[in-house]
Amino acid sequence: MSKALVGIIMGSQSDLKIMGEAAQVLEDLEVEFELTVVSAHRTPDRMYEYAQNARERGIKVIIAGAGGAAHLPGMVASLTTLPVIGVPVKSSNSIDGWDSVLSILQMPAGVPVATVALNGARNAGILAAQILSTFDKKVADALKTYKEDLKSKVLESAKKIEEDGWRGKSIGF
Amino acid sequence: MSKALVGIIMGSQSDLKIMGEAAQVLEDLEVEFELTVVSAHRTPDRMYEYAQNARERGIKVIIAGAGGAAHLPGMVASLTTLPVIGVPVKSSNSIDGWDSVLSILQMPAGVPVATVALNGARNAGILAAQILSTFDKKVADALKTYKEDLKSKVLESAKKIEEDGWRGKSIGF
Amino acid sequence: MSKALVGIIMGSQSDLKIMGEAAQVLEDLEVEFELTVVSAHRTPDRMYEYAQNARERGIKVIIAGAGGAAHLPGMVASLTTLPVIGVPVKSSNSIDGWDSVLSILQMPAGVPVATVALNGARNAGILAAQILSTFDKKVADALKTYKEDLKSKVLESAKKIEEDGWRGKSIGF
Amino acid sequence: MSKALVGIIMGSQSDLKIMGEAAQVLEDLEVEFELTVVSAHRTPDRMYEYAQNARERGIKVIIAGAGGAAHLPGMVASLTTLPVIGVPVKSSNSIDGWDSVLSILQMPAGVPVATVALNGARNAGILAAQILSTFDKKVADALKTYKEDLKSKVLESAKKIEEDGWRGKSIGF
Amino acid sequence: MSKALVGIIMGSQSDLKIMGEAAQVLEDLEVEFELTVVSAHRTPDRMYEYAQNARERGIKVIIAGAGGAAHLPGMVASLTTLPVIGVPVKSSNSIDGWDSVLSILQMPAGVPVATVALNGARNAGILAAQILSTFDKKVADALKTYKEDLKSKVLESAKKIEEDGWRGKSIGF
Amino acid sequence: MSKALVGIIMGSQSDLKIMGEAAQVLEDLEVEFELTVVSAHRTPDRMYEYAQNARERGIKVIIAGAGGAAHLPGMVASLTTLPVIGVPVKSSNSIDGWDSVLSILQMPAGVPVATVALNGARNAGILAAQILSTFDKKVADALKTYKEDLKSKVLESAKKIEEDGWRGKSIGF
Amino acid sequence: MSKALVGIIMGSQSDLKIMGEAAQVLEDLEVEFELTVVSAHRTPDRMYEYAQNARERGIKVIIAGAGGAAHLPGMVASLTTLPVIGVPVKSSNSIDGWDSVLSILQMPAGVPVATVALNGARNAGILAAQILSTFDKKVADALKTYKEDLKSKVLESAKKIEEDGWRGKSIGF
Amino acid sequence: MSKALVGIIMGSQSDLKIMGEAAQVLEDLEVEFELTVVSAHRTPDRMYEYAQNARERGIKVIIAGAGGAAHLPGMVASLTTLPVIGVPVKSSNSIDGWDSVLSILQMPAGVPVATVALNGARNAGILAAQILSTFDKKVADALKTYKEDLKSKVLESAKKIEEDGWRGKSIGF
Repeated sequence: MSKALVGIIMGSQSDLKIMGEAAQVLEDLEVEFELTVVSAHRTPDRMYEYAQNARERGIKVIIAGAGGAAHLPGMVASLTTLPVIGVPVKSSNSIDGWDSVLSILQMPAGVPVATVALNGARNAGILAAQILSTFDKKVADALKTYKEDLKSKVLESAKKIEEDGWRGKSIGF
Repeated sequence: MSKALVGIIMGSQSDLKIMGEAAQVLEDLEVEFELTVVSAHRTPDRMYEYAQNARERGIKVIIAGAGGAAHLPGMVASLTTLPVIGVPVKSSNSIDGWDSVLSILQMPAGVPVATVALNGARNAGILAAQILSTFDKKVADALKTYKEDLKSKVLESAKKIEEDGWRGKSIGF
Repeated sequence: MSKALVGIIMGSQSDLKIMGEAAQVLEDLEVEFELTVVSAHRTPDRMYEYAQNARERGIKVIIAGAGGAAHLPGMVASLTTLPVIGVPVKSSNSIDGWDSVLSILQMPAGVPVATVALNGARNAGILAAQILSTFDKKVADALKTYKEDLKSKVLESAKKIEEDGWRGKSIGF
Repeated sequence: MSKALVGIIMGSQSDLKIMGEAAQVLEDLEVEFELTVVSAHRTPDRMYEYAQNARERGIKVIIAGAGGAAHLPGMVASLTTLPVIGVPVKSSNSIDGWDSVLSILQMPAGVPVATVALNGARNAGILAAQILSTFDKKVADALKTYKEDLKSKVLESAKKIEEDGWRGKSIGF
Repeated sequence: MSKALVGIIMGSQSDLKIMGEAAQVLEDLEVEFELTVVSAHRTPDRMYEYAQNARERGIKVIIAGAGGAAHLPGMVASLTTLPVIGVPVKSSNSIDGWDSVLSILQMPAGVPVATVALNGARNAGILAAQILSTFDKKVADALKTYKEDLKSKVLESAKKIEEDGWRGKSIGF
Repeated sequence: MSKALVGIIMGSQSDLKIMGEAAQVLEDLEVEFELTVVSAHRTPDRMYEYAQNARERGIKVIIAGAGGAAHLPGMVASLTTLPVIGVPVKSSNSIDGWDSVLSILQMPAGVPVATVALNGARNAGILAAQILSTFDKKVADALKTYKEDLKSKVLESAKKIEEDGWRGKSIGF
Repeated sequence: MSKALVGIIMGSQSDLKIMGEAAQVLEDLEVEFELTVVSAHRTPDRMYEYAQNARERGIKVIIAGAGGAAHLPGMVASLTTLPVIGVPVKSSNSIDGWDSVLSILQMPAGVPVATVALNGARNAGILAAQILSTFDKKVADALKTYKEDLKSKVLESAKKIEEDGWRGKSIGF
Repeated sequence: MSKALVGIIMGSQSDLKIMGEAAQVLEDLEVEFELTVVSAHRTPDRMYEYAQNARERGIKVIIAGAGGAAHLPGMVASLTTLPVIGVPVKSSNSIDGWDSVLSILQMPAGVPVATVALNGARNAGILAAQILSTFDKKVADALKTYKEDLKSKVLESAKKIEEDGWRGKSIGF
């Protein structure tokens, strides 16, 4: 984990089920990352240390996921000038996810958090790669391929439906 | 300010218009308090210091007001074992106040914030006094008087309406 | 139940599944409490009596949980000068919990309810202990230990993930 | 006020601006009513007394208006078997009216409140008259006339637009 | 069905699961009622006929339940001067019940619907009985007994919890 | 008005301020229309008649605007097989427009209403023209020109900003 | 698929479970249609091509379904002057469907989307047929029959309930 | 404009009032940018061209602002692998900003938009600079200074309040 460019942190181990998708997509795109648990409310000192040392440790982007009154992404953003991507997690503690979304998104002027969709950890990983891609051609190429794969899958499913019919058993309808 | 029992803090000077009501009611109830600006996102170190030293400085209750993605009350609560009262402020940055309310109220298990109504700074002051009143008879008596005053005002306005009629000019209808 | 410092009440026996967490954490913190059912809408006289006698019975804090149009915490607060902690319960009668939250949180000026998160009974118990801790060193110490335990658990899970990897079977991912 | 069939109460004198419309429409329909201020949170004893004596004083329907965490209609309903009409008032304390609506509407099984639209005091008055009309032919006739007037006004404005054109100055467009 | 005082109608047979509770409570209170399906959108003529003839058929109160864009209660109210009680049903077509609630509650001035809680059909039945009780002592007495039963059940469960303890197996905790 | 292809109706004359935009755009696109007031709740018979006769009078599309518990579009749709476009109007009676939107949009299966944005009367007019354009080349051409005009205006303002700079006085910034 | 009058497209194959209902009802009404997958975000070129060629290929109405940040209906509408019907799909990515509804409904002036209820694909199909029916008598007749069938089903279930009683086993209550 | 690293685009000239803050902060941080109007719905071809050429023109980050059903940020993101920052603008067309927020935030897996707060254009500019700062030390230093300025302003206002008192005229209370 010593060469990590992306740091993935989350408020609780239970968020890993969602946040693991960020790790997965970064692995697929061949971007070095690290992943651990840092809680704003239960380990504030650890959060301070993590956020304040990240840049000099070589981290370029931080992905932070949390649910409910989700303060981790915003507090990390207050402690670093690195871009921080926030993932609102719909935890069991959450009111339909609205609390997670609003407490990450609605940061005051001066301290942005790049918020992605509710439970959108995969997109957080892609966004981190996009940020790296602005100066790293290898990542840019990997993203281009990823985008073409997305397209291919849609075209395949379109072809299948057009051939088999919308009611065909191939699509389990 | 050296004998303050209640510490009132707010994320921004612009919150003072609302948070001043907490100060006013504590003054009325003759409870010693202090009031200053502490921003979770712009002065995180100051927030740490404030929260971690409050108890040994003699503070018994902290009232923290903030708007938007309001992290101040929850972060202070993560750094002290004192009761923290959170006031969701409907700032210009806010989506109808929902962000302020949810990012203060929906704290994870282990780290409570005693949340009052949107812009409910007056109630935050009263709640702080109620907490002190559990061991301080003088404050308990002041609260009892305050409650009786509330009642008297309602009875007076009821009497006025019953005498003057609901359309009477005395009530400006 | 004669030495109870905290009174836990709830609108319906069905709320016990949630409200039992307040009892549990107070037991863990060695704070004396009592627990019973008091319905604002079905036993208003009982509620009056409970609220009006609580202070002289030695109760220092009341925790009241209710769902839907949840009037119990606010009405109890109108009948005592003790601090009242409200727990919005997401009952089957509730619209995603919004009704429970808003009808407890949005109290008018003069009559505060210290509201915690939806179903946040554990935090209600901790908040009650925090209130007592302002004058009771033993409870303050118990809370300090509790906070350190929260921290230890996060550090352990962080260590485990860092050692086993985010995909390790130890975290069931 | 001795022959009142409808009792109009409100949590605060400031609600009179809205609640006066209930009085006005009852006056128009020639239904006897009384109107006063009764606060659930500031005068709970007065509320108890009002609700528990209403039926034997000859009141047939109670109209109760309140805003924010609006407990007046529901608490009155818990203390009487008379039909209680609740008017959610969008007070300055309110989050866009949602708190007023939900804390009046979402009553638990066993204790209904007949809720009307946000600020819908006029409709509360009409509904009270409809209830009386089930056994009082004079009120039924007044309501029939009222309904025909509503219709006539629409037909007139339709005629005017059709004659003058949608852009005609007569409609100030 | 010839002596029915209360008419229960619903937009779809699938609403019967909820609306049957209105029937049940009226049966318990010994109030005569009728129950059928009337759809505003699929049988508008039937709705017209039902609403316009209800009063002269002897119906005193109409209970109308519907979900989604729920127009049945409001349209019936536009066609009669009888009190109409609306039950917002959380149908499969509904967005968390908000559509049902708002399209029944927010009637324009002149045409009230007495709205009860989401899926609150039991309360609709009780409210209908309360309306009848304003002139029918037998129903008033039945409601008084019903209210006392509600109270007794709470007292029993309170007693049980106090005796067995909050963790006792008797409450299945 | 005898050759109208589009019928614009609204629940109240006060909706004309919004609904006039539908008339204006149809005039611009040279589509014949008629406009009047029809209230679902105050003139239900008129609504029946309007909806049931529209097709044989030569109307091809009905645009219906209403606010609050907005039943006009859905009830008209239940009484005709013509396409009905619903315009949710944010009336003074409305809770931020949510009631208008949901009570028009969430129609049950079998009875669609083509809903446009809150206060989106201009789009209702364009949609009506689009419907006519499927068989009327002259309208199709008018829409094509309209779309090109939209584009030209954007290109002009883009050019202006690029030339004058984002802070230029030409854009009043 | 060469004679299709209605084009049904959806953002993802997983939307077919909902969107298939549009196909089904068009089949029942004997309207020619085509159905395929077109993703705004993954196959933007395909979307452009589809939208820009639809009119000259003979398509009269486009039905587009999508969930979450649902851009397909609005973007297609920006690229054609045909009427576009949008179906908000409550995908797993969605916050209770609100995102799907608002990102389809709230189109800016100039570019309407005819939005139907959440998951309301059946209504999208009927609306498409209604649009065709304005110039095609055969479709108009099919819709008339469809409407009568809806009515018959309600009358049958009403009859059954009236005969068997609301508690009868015939309705599975 | 030839050396721009950040491209700021917005759906309408009226968004410039908000989006100008992104330009201002980039100017303050000495980051080269360009700014123009690109409408997803009115100039889809221009949007395609802009998005598809941005990377090879040397743009590193795109900031896109839009309101209502805001498709510009998401559609641009579908057409480039550059990081796209979305600014939800609370336009006059918007339902309290919820539509803008949700239609930008809730992007499907594969196509992220880095969303900032409602009207949070200033933060969009800062986030763009943070992204550049990951490889550009000069920008990193500018951001560090910016962060220190934020802190200084809070400390100053705190000092002023502590010296003058919370009621002092210096803070206009």
